[in-house]
Amino acid sequence: MGGDIGPDVVVPGAALALKRRPDLQFLFYGDSERVSALLDQYPMLKAVSKIHHTDVTVRMDDKPSQALRQGRWKSSMWKSIEAVKTNEAAACVSAGNTGALMAMARFCLRTMPGIDRPVIAAIWPTLRGESIVLDVGANVGADARQLVDSAVMGAAMAGAIFGQSRPTVGLLNVGVEEIKGIEEVRLAGRILKERPHPNLQYHGFVEGDDLGRGTVDVVVTEGFSGNIALKTAEGTARQISQYLRQAMSRTLLARLGYLLAKGAFDQLREKLDPRKVNGGVFLGLNGIVIKSHGGTDAEGFAAAIELGRAMVVNDLMAKIAFGLAHSLAAAPDFAAAEEQTGAA
Amino acid sequence: MGGDIGPDVVVPGAALALKRRPDLQFLFYGDSERVSALLDQYPMLKAVSKIHHTDVTVRMDDKPSQALRQGRWKSSMWKSIEAVKTNEAAACVSAGNTGALMAMARFCLRTMPGIDRPVIAAIWPTLRGESIVLDVGANVGADARQLVDSAVMGAAMAGAIFGQSRPTVGLLNVGVEEIKGIEEVRLAGRILKERPHPNLQYHGFVEGDDLGRGTVDVVVTEGFSGNIALKTAEGTARQISQYLRQAMSRTLLARLGYLLAKGAFDQLREKLDPRKVNGGVFLGLNGIVIKSHGGTDAEGFAAAIELGRAMVVNDLMAKIAFGLAHSLAAAPDFAAAEEQTGAA
Repeated sequence: MGGDIGPDVVVPGAALALKRRPDLQFLFYGDSERVSALLDQYPMLKAVSKIHHTDVTVRMDDKPSQALRQGRWKSSMWKSIEAVKTNEAAACVSAGNTGALMAMARFCLRTMPGIDRPVIAAIWPTLRGESIVLDVGANVGADARQLVDSAVMGAAMAGAIFGQSRPTVGLLNVGVEEIKGIEEVRLAGRILKERPHPNLQYHGFVEGDDLGRGTVDVVVTEGFSGNIALKTAEGTARQISQYLRQAMSRTLLARLGYLLAKGAFDQLREKLDPRKVNGGVFLGLNGIVIKSHGGTDAEGFAAAIELGRAMVVNDLMAKIAFGLAHSLAAAPDFAAAEEQTGAA
Repeated sequence: MGGDIGPDVVVPGAALALKRRPDLQFLFYGDSERVSALLDQYPMLKAVSKIHHTDVTVRMDDKPSQALRQGRWKSSMWKSIEAVKTNEAAACVSAGNTGALMAMARFCLRTMPGIDRPVIAAIWPTLRGESIVLDVGANVGADARQLVDSAVMGAAMAGAIFGQSRPTVGLLNVGVEEIKGIEEVRLAGRILKERPHPNLQYHGFVEGDDLGRGTVDVVVTEGFSGNIALKTAEGTARQISQYLRQAMSRTLLARLGYLLAKGAFDQLREKLDPRKVNGGVFLGLNGIVIKSHGGTDAEGFAAAIELGRAMVVNDLMAKIAFGLAHSLAAAPDFAAAEEQTGAA
């Protein structure tokens, strides 16, 4: 029921995903009449789907606390997350209210052992392919321990969707020298450097322009700057697209040139298509939950479903658990490292 | 002597700026032999320039403390800042080491009454024209008081270079609702909202994508996220330019289209030219200091000089002083506002 459009995007999105990934099966939670009417248009999808009716819907502008109070146990959002908890579903995909989804997912699934709080990971298109950036907005601020956990979880996700056994990890900072930036990031850098990890290669600090360059496979942020970086990049891409449109329509020659090069422009548009990398992944929970952009269309929602599928098929949860188990084994060092930094 | 190239960029840059702004006069600090040989190539520039020889040069990789220790009183960097202090120069423009320039400028010029520390302001090209974004990296983190000071100083700068009497000001955050983001930003938002200011209109929170959109004239950040946003935008612009180049060279038709639309592409390139908005402005000091990109060319350095000139001609210092005087008059409210927030 979530997102700006609701079932009219979610159901066609599922149909698209099914066409590309025939092993998918679906559980729909929401207004059974609306969903059922839509499913009638997609017989193949209908054959692999079950509808669970719910009366309560979390609205896009509900506060997380409000959503929890009114929607716990009974809303479509809650029920779809609960299906992951009870193993009826392998992953939950929602285009609904991010804050509410996070609050409910956290309440229902709980965080993994040793994890304080979940983070949101995004896939970032780069000149070298794709990177994972986390946290992009679940939290504002993180301590060194939480940053190291994010590094481990992000590396596990890179392992799951890019197939890398030891992805490179960088910490987003305002300079690459070890003395730069906020204390938590510096301390996390020291810990990652001094404590080799079987699942990741620590690269060091990276800066904002390393994101698009694809300098590392995984970029770890404390949440506040990660969200701002993500939205700044989206905004800059829109800005340049608009400049380009304006420039290409200004003169007759430019318009003619545009027509000739239309294939190239279409390629570019596809490369910049935000729907292709739609899907914020909640990491650190006992289950897979994907947040689709609320304003996306069926194509974008299908991408979020396929992302969820990829993480199930490639065993994201086991990869994270393995990574964290190794990280936790060395946990007592944190206190010592923090003391040292405090004294320095 | 600063920047990746040194006098070979600085002197031709000054010559370019002089051509466009014939009222300029120059004081050059550095290796008099090198500068003098270059000036011989620009007789018009030579006629309005004086060279002051210095033996000591701050290197691009010197730490600020090191630069201060070795370069204070005698380096070309110090001398050029000192010329502002003694009113021999109206502004100092350097392509040198940012950290060293900031440390020396702060030591030599001191901060304005009531200002804890300087910030760096950048000009940001937007769909609506240009905005000012500050702090983009002088500091990491800021308290509410420092954010409000930045709002006032940024508004004064917008007044000086855009001629706006009450520019709109937004605080960079991860959402537009009042409950979003880090505490310092929320508190600064409350203060700006509740205390009308003669020099600015407070708009509220803005997000990363509002930067390119030009939602407000002045965007205030706490430094860490501002620097990351700036570099992310630069990186995204480079990334898209490269996609575009690749797309336009892939097929014969695309190449032909490119040739026909070359005028439009040139316009776009000019629009994205980072040299045109070259120059980080140090705000909060008793004098005007501009930091040019270290890697820029003569065109970029000329832009930094012209930016400095615009701020002198339009009385930036008086505008800031007026803004701060008004802000300071209401300063005691800060403690009360902070207490309230703590209690909330």
